[in-house]
Amino acid sequence: MSKKNRIRLYIDADLSDGVFVVCQECQAHYLQNVLRLKTNDEVFVFNGKDGEFEAVVAESSKKKCVLSIQKQFMPFEKGLDVWLMFAPLKKDQTDFVVSKAVELGAAKIVPIMTEYTTAAKVRPDRLQNLIIEAAEQCRRQDIPELESAVELKKVLKDWQEKRILFYFDETGRGAAAADVMPKFAGEPAGLLIGPEGGFSQKELEILRKLPYACGISLGRRILRAETAAVAGLSCWQALCGDWAATTDKKEKPVEDTYCR
Amino acid sequence: MSKKNRIRLYIDADLSDGVFVVCQECQAHYLQNVLRLKTNDEVFVFNGKDGEFEAVVAESSKKKCVLSIQKQFMPFEKGLDVWLMFAPLKKDQTDFVVSKAVELGAAKIVPIMTEYTTAAKVRPDRLQNLIIEAAEQCRRQDIPELESAVELKKVLKDWQEKRILFYFDETGRGAAAADVMPKFAGEPAGLLIGPEGGFSQKELEILRKLPYACGISLGRRILRAETAAVAGLSCWQALCGDWAATTDKKEKPVEDTYCR
Repeated sequence: MSKKNRIRLYIDADLSDGVFVVCQECQAHYLQNVLRLKTNDEVFVFNGKDGEFEAVVAESSKKKCVLSIQKQFMPFEKGLDVWLMFAPLKKDQTDFVVSKAVELGAAKIVPIMTEYTTAAKVRPDRLQNLIIEAAEQCRRQDIPELESAVELKKVLKDWQEKRILFYFDETGRGAAAADVMPKFAGEPAGLLIGPEGGFSQKELEILRKLPYACGISLGRRILRAETAAVAGLSCWQALCGDWAATTDKKEKPVEDTYCR
Repeated sequence: MSKKNRIRLYIDADLSDGVFVVCQECQAHYLQNVLRLKTNDEVFVFNGKDGEFEAVVAESSKKKCVLSIQKQFMPFEKGLDVWLMFAPLKKDQTDFVVSKAVELGAAKIVPIMTEYTTAAKVRPDRLQNLIIEAAEQCRRQDIPELESAVELKKVLKDWQEKRILFYFDETGRGAAAADVMPKFAGEPAGLLIGPEGGFSQKELEILRKLPYACGISLGRRILRAETAAVAGLSCWQALCGDWAATTDKKEKPVEDTYCR
């Protein structure tokens, strides 16, 4: 299997050259019965702190799978400091927002209870699994933190002023992302997405008065809450985040399009 | 029901003050048995060309529903000229991309067959319904055009050079959206998203040589194809599109955040 397509596994253990790791039972089951890995098959492993390593299946017996960690393949790289705060939606949409937030580089994911949040109960265990799965697939090194659901009031009360808060204002009174986000490039940020139905008038009045908050408008079309979450994170990555840096330095730049 | 939440219906008929419209049978069923609308209930209607009108249910009998069109509520507004071209994915992801493309203001949606497209058959009738549903919900006036699936080769052969083509290059060799997209603000554009697995080397070589094409990088994390479609359209709207214009002129600007 080419390195590009090689299986990539999150392992909850310290990783370094030459160590052996005994997989958890559920992971052993997955490796053996789902992926059908055999002794000496190669995988990539990462743990969210030591980087990514090449590994081989050293022992694969019933209910037990031991990986032999080979050399480091990628150093650990922490993503940028951007939080996604969103009002929990129906089960599928919440799953969707959380998975996309991982792909789009959120460092922290915070379910927020607002006035109009029709809070389908959030299941942290379930979301944690989605987060790890998405991190394995999108090949990021770090695992975003999942906070337990919290009231908007409390989040604002505990807010550290040095972190800019971009809230998405459906009323058309927000600024254009391209006008304001670049002013905060490289700074810690939080993105706040309201529920279907948006923020209440009271919530908007509070947000608009906060010295560290900035309302962003995503145009006249009414976006579904999950669309706004993906759109908001995409705008931030493009304007302040790791999409804003030009061509990946490790790659030869493309010389032959007239855009460059 | 407040105007904000009032039902909004696409009607395939000419609309003007004072006319009566007989709904199609399926729509009559929807209005009567799903939405449980009664005579004199109010709805908004639009047809993708005459703008949006207030209407009331004038007659509601078994299998027949007649709407009386009242005064125009919103003039017709055509969205910007941006196409989303994407490689069809599994059924659910294709549905997702199409719905989101409508919310995010695509004028034309084009399923594209590339070398690595594992073409789950595209069902135009089904997608057309999703498009109308999404247009009704996001409150846009125009209905995006759905093209039938076409080979990438043919699309490039027939391309009009005055339209910039932004293709999303997973190899890290693309430019940053924020660096190049603004140069083409207000111009017709096409966004091209590859399938899972990306474009083939041959396809990339062709794309990189096109004088009207520009490769965009969405960073190092591997985005799922449907995520890239939403992210790409979001970047374009924020940098060249109708999110780039500052605060909605119809609304009082917000005076009290320090961003502004």
